[in-house]
Amino acid sequence: MNRAPEVTRYRADAVLPCDGTGQVFRPGEVEISGDSVTYVGFPRDGGHGGPHASTTHGAAPAGDVEEVRLSGLLLPGFVNVHCHSPMSLFRGSGENLPLLRWLREVLWPREARLTSDDVFWGMTLASAELLQLGVTTSCEMYFFEDAVADAVLAAGSRAVITPAALSLARPEDAAAVGDAWWAERLEEVSDFHARRHGESGRIEVGFGPHAAYTVPIEVLADIAEVAQGLDAIFHIHVAETEGEVESYAAEHGRSVPEALADVGALDGRVIAAHSIWLSETDIALYRLHDVAVAHCPQSNAKLASGVAPLSRLLAEGIRVGLGTDGPASNNNLGLWEEMRFAALVARIHDRDAAAIPAATALDLATRGGGAVLGRPDLGTLAAGSKADMVLVDMEDPAFGPIHEDAHVVEHVVWSASSRLVTDVWVAGRQVVAGGRCLTVDVGEARRQVEDRSRRLLAG
Amino acid sequence: MNRAPEVTRYRADAVLPCDGTGQVFRPGEVEISGDSVTYVGFPRDGGHGGPHASTTHGAAPAGDVEEVRLSGLLLPGFVNVHCHSPMSLFRGSGENLPLLRWLREVLWPREARLTSDDVFWGMTLASAELLQLGVTTSCEMYFFEDAVADAVLAAGSRAVITPAALSLARPEDAAAVGDAWWAERLEEVSDFHARRHGESGRIEVGFGPHAAYTVPIEVLADIAEVAQGLDAIFHIHVAETEGEVESYAAEHGRSVPEALADVGALDGRVIAAHSIWLSETDIALYRLHDVAVAHCPQSNAKLASGVAPLSRLLAEGIRVGLGTDGPASNNNLGLWEEMRFAALVARIHDRDAAAIPAATALDLATRGGGAVLGRPDLGTLAAGSKADMVLVDMEDPAFGPIHEDAHVVEHVVWSASSRLVTDVWVAGRQVVAGGRCLTVDVGEARRQVEDRSRRLLAG
Repeated sequence: MNRAPEVTRYRADAVLPCDGTGQVFRPGEVEISGDSVTYVGFPRDGGHGGPHASTTHGAAPAGDVEEVRLSGLLLPGFVNVHCHSPMSLFRGSGENLPLLRWLREVLWPREARLTSDDVFWGMTLASAELLQLGVTTSCEMYFFEDAVADAVLAAGSRAVITPAALSLARPEDAAAVGDAWWAERLEEVSDFHARRHGESGRIEVGFGPHAAYTVPIEVLADIAEVAQGLDAIFHIHVAETEGEVESYAAEHGRSVPEALADVGALDGRVIAAHSIWLSETDIALYRLHDVAVAHCPQSNAKLASGVAPLSRLLAEGIRVGLGTDGPASNNNLGLWEEMRFAALVARIHDRDAAAIPAATALDLATRGGGAVLGRPDLGTLAAGSKADMVLVDMEDPAFGPIHEDAHVVEHVVWSASSRLVTDVWVAGRQVVAGGRCLTVDVGEARRQVEDRSRRLLAG
Repeated sequence: MNRAPEVTRYRADAVLPCDGTGQVFRPGEVEISGDSVTYVGFPRDGGHGGPHASTTHGAAPAGDVEEVRLSGLLLPGFVNVHCHSPMSLFRGSGENLPLLRWLREVLWPREARLTSDDVFWGMTLASAELLQLGVTTSCEMYFFEDAVADAVLAAGSRAVITPAALSLARPEDAAAVGDAWWAERLEEVSDFHARRHGESGRIEVGFGPHAAYTVPIEVLADIAEVAQGLDAIFHIHVAETEGEVESYAAEHGRSVPEALADVGALDGRVIAAHSIWLSETDIALYRLHDVAVAHCPQSNAKLASGVAPLSRLLAEGIRVGLGTDGPASNNNLGLWEEMRFAALVARIHDRDAAAIPAATALDLATRGGGAVLGRPDLGTLAAGSKADMVLVDMEDPAFGPIHEDAHVVEHVVWSASSRLVTDVWVAGRQVVAGGRCLTVDVGEARRQVEDRSRRLLAG
């Protein structure tokens, strides 16, 4: 094998940096060194672009610059901020049920039977799906976190892994679980953080207490304290269904955000997934504590949970990214349909044809996701960002006409879809070519998931 | 070139006939003779399947049966029941405006400059898009109907063409247009029907009066009478915005469906596009007159027009199919996202996670579309139906696990998308292979649309 060149310059028909400036480079250049981006902009003359001499595409001696001509549009990889990706094992199970019945009757009893190997294969298959759909970072909340990390690393993907705290033996009888069980789980996750946070530069570790209706508030406070001590993400489901919000308020005399704020759990890097049924007080608390929202509009619609107030959250300056939720409640892990759906549903909800224009929708899927994770190096292409990129076919019949830069953004959001993803890179390494994942044996992963899910679903 | 065999038997990993039975054939066989399907079901033994001896795939002498093994899932081609496809010329123009401002300020002034060649190229590019997305039949309402028909025939696609009746010179001052203009237009469309209805077995001609706020009620009555005499479709926009409904009622003392019923215009084969803001009386009139609805949920959301009562219409036994509307208000012509969006938005609207299950959503995009057009030979695969088929990759990471037949339908609707369309046939002829349209020079069509739209948008 040839040694990889130290610097690679990709020249594409267009580059969308998604850096908040709205700029479009037509044509554009992205220069990569190692796992990071070193330049984004209009193509520079090869002769004076830097310390290295330009060479043609091909075997380049170390220290040289490799130039690669790409046909299409380069975007940053999408950032999916709320997933339970190993649930690819359960895709299609328990259709047409509302959230709590689906969890109680279908999911939780089966998840209680999971093994580490099941999760590895579920996450492996999901990683191929994520990458082929142009998602280069996912924020995962699940069990068997070592298996999740192993699968992500093997697939060449990037993840923030927030191991779930939830007792599958007694998911809704948290008080009966016992302090010792929670303490042991927190210890496990802290140990996982110590062992694997930062591994290969592609794994970040956080904490994933499931929800306030499944984890006691004192335990949430303990987890938050540990997370804050490690400057780690605290990732939790909040206000997903109206019933859950009402019953929590009836039992505890305050909302979940109020309860979390009261015990100091909103003081760190908090991601509140779903956040549909928020009161004015809740929104004020999100603003005050800079709580980020993982907006999951398709899952929220499919389970008939409701519509989160997207425009309102953005107007309040709250950080919002997009999550697909698990593949058993969406049922895929792609963000293209998610961003389009987020914008369209906001227009219905707001009764405003100008709500969530294309640039805002694209921002949610890219830079907004990076912001939710507190990672300005993700979801944008700029000097210093991670070299996570997606190449999109611009020659498709639906990707035109293009008379101004704004049309490129509009076509990405409204006309294109993941079918136009041809190539994907994570940390500078190509992981998808011609629409096919290079790093996962998809056939084997499909067979493993097929066999393992058959066992899990039986009985 | 070899002569095509008289009979072709396609054997696929699965066949979804979408015939209302819910049946899934795994594996399945579709037999085609000429432009029609002659058998759909489980694979038959080659030796006794019919009068012809089975041969291996390859050059087959006339009179023989060619057997073709396909990897994936065969579906009927999707039926898009409300399009203005040549508006591919205007994709991305006038974003973020509500319907009436968009029509008045952006579209109508530019459409007034269209030439027949513009429309030919707009429809040609759109045909490639439709076919690549798995849509084999579209119901078109536009101008320059001969150019639309020419493009459809050349692209190898299928269309119901309902030439628009709308004065682009004075679109909202219909009374001032003058009787002579309307009479001449009706004469033109009748002549078009006489010349081209049934051409090549792939063109059906109907009538497309734009709306009751742009065409006088007496003209609508005249058009309906002619359409009924020819047993032709009468395709009209109804109740798309709340403002339009209110102002029509204020001016005329009745709703548009009431006005149409009063003049006998609901007695024939009527397609009422959008139909968002319907009263109880309107719904009763639809039921009474068997009016079919072209449901356009994404266009309705993007323009913030509203949400049509899908579950209610279906419960009333009203025929409903899916339309994308024009590519300048959606902004693509595919039905995959449309069916998924229809189901998801219905679940929000109804607050019911069991609303519009996957099988119903798929039905809307296939058999439901055929029913809206009064064409039981479209949108299903059954003996006697047209040989319009789509092959879907089942090996994708998102297309599993599959433990029961229902999972196939669920994965089609919830997990798959047009990115998994590999091959498409219309009237037995293959028009897409490996995701690429075989019948249109997409590069040339893109260039033509780019140049022509630049001229149309200028000034």
